[in-house]
Amino acid sequence: MFIHEEKIRVCYADTDQMGYVYYGNYARYYEIGRVEALRSLGFSYKKLEESGVMLPVYEHASRYHQPARYDDLLTIKVLIRSLPHVRMIFNYEIRNAEGVLLNTGETTLVFIDKATDKICRAPAALVQQLVPFLT
Amino acid sequence: MFIHEEKIRVCYADTDQMGYVYYGNYARYYEIGRVEALRSLGFSYKKLEESGVMLPVYEHASRYHQPARYDDLLTIKVLIRSLPHVRMIFNYEIRNAEGVLLNTGETTLVFIDKATDKICRAPAALVQQLVPFLT
Amino acid sequence: MFIHEEKIRVCYADTDQMGYVYYGNYARYYEIGRVEALRSLGFSYKKLEESGVMLPVYEHASRYHQPARYDDLLTIKVLIRSLPHVRMIFNYEIRNAEGVLLNTGETTLVFIDKATDKICRAPAALVQQLVPFLT
Amino acid sequence: MFIHEEKIRVCYADTDQMGYVYYGNYARYYEIGRVEALRSLGFSYKKLEESGVMLPVYEHASRYHQPARYDDLLTIKVLIRSLPHVRMIFNYEIRNAEGVLLNTGETTLVFIDKATDKICRAPAALVQQLVPFLT
Repeated sequence: MFIHEEKIRVCYADTDQMGYVYYGNYARYYEIGRVEALRSLGFSYKKLEESGVMLPVYEHASRYHQPARYDDLLTIKVLIRSLPHVRMIFNYEIRNAEGVLLNTGETTLVFIDKATDKICRAPAALVQQLVPFLT
Repeated sequence: MFIHEEKIRVCYADTDQMGYVYYGNYARYYEIGRVEALRSLGFSYKKLEESGVMLPVYEHASRYHQPARYDDLLTIKVLIRSLPHVRMIFNYEIRNAEGVLLNTGETTLVFIDKATDKICRAPAALVQQLVPFLT
Repeated sequence: MFIHEEKIRVCYADTDQMGYVYYGNYARYYEIGRVEALRSLGFSYKKLEESGVMLPVYEHASRYHQPARYDDLLTIKVLIRSLPHVRMIFNYEIRNAEGVLLNTGETTLVFIDKATDKICRAPAALVQQLVPFLT
Repeated sequence: MFIHEEKIRVCYADTDQMGYVYYGNYARYYEIGRVEALRSLGFSYKKLEESGVMLPVYEHASRYHQPARYDDLLTIKVLIRSLPHVRMIFNYEIRNAEGVLLNTGETTLVFIDKATDKICRAPAALVQQLVPFLT
């Protein structure tokens, strides 16, 4: 398993009138978590796109255990449990500074060749980086 | 089954640099869909909160079949298949103007008594409105 | 002067923990207002981009007189006071259902030729549509 | 003058289909900048609200010199040029990693007493922290 942790501070823009982080804003936290997870492996999502491969989200599931609140310093734990082929699955666990589990989620992303707009294989370089963690 | 349809125009703010609606923005479309579905039943989410009951999202799942794009006039179909007790489940189907299915989703919301911060039963008035459609 | 009015319902996603619409979200209301103002003139912003001309925002100013709140049905009044040349200026007045002025704003947008990434003139077709209102 | 600098990475959620950061998203960058500027002075915006004082934005102006783009590592420079009384003015300069000036802005915030919903004076503790920098 490959694990990466990223800190994100909840800002006012993220809250709603319940005083909670709006449920749609976790998607952004997940995105920041997975992009920084890839960067920590030496892999740039930006360069992936520039090389002609997109990685849009195909499936997304979240469970909201406890609300995140304004100014909370969240830890986004990103877990990669399997090697990507044409899909790549990321799991997320979000905790506040006291370690309370607030949110869990999973996203499945699909590699798309921009030129053909068709599904394609994960870049070999990314798979190579992950092999030591996942085998 | 109770069904409500709502039209939403994709604005520039919703798009990302792929030219797609960003995956986190569907949560907002679902919210608009379910609030307007309740309003069409004569039920105001705003008044629910003012009466001391909140309805936060507990679970959320989305599948992104095809991208929604800038200026698309989307139809958000909201489906309620079961009477709410302490939870209320909404299903969503989003289509573009050509009728192509772009996105499906489900959210489970929980009734919370603001005073005690505990789970509570759905308001009788809401259940009553739904009975004719669901039995 | 050309005037267009557009209705927008404040959704939960737009609010913050003060119970107000977050100040950054008015930019979206302005965008919806100006795009629908152009559409009412028979002019599609989407087609403008497809024809190779972008219209990004160069300047933006807002004054927040009174807070907009959850579920408010806002009227976005869009005012065009001068013919566009290489720039186009839109003014905005946002009122709630009781007619109270909540927000005023102004945005200056610039016509950019995508091919050269340089400033260009407003399309003649757009100028023509506006002439009867502005002279 | 008091100056604070904060780094923010542009995420996908912030971009639009031009490949630029959407103009409404700078409000969030400004917010993060000013809250962290206050924190660096030992002053918590969260605690301010808990003590019964809100600080909503009253005026906001932005100029978009050059687009910020996906994955840019931005530096948000926050400048406080005058002591707050009932208002507090923040200026912003946003640069990319190459030092190019992308955006400048100004926000005027107003101290509001939650109990009376009226304008009030800035907390003495905040003014005290700023005095050494501004006199």
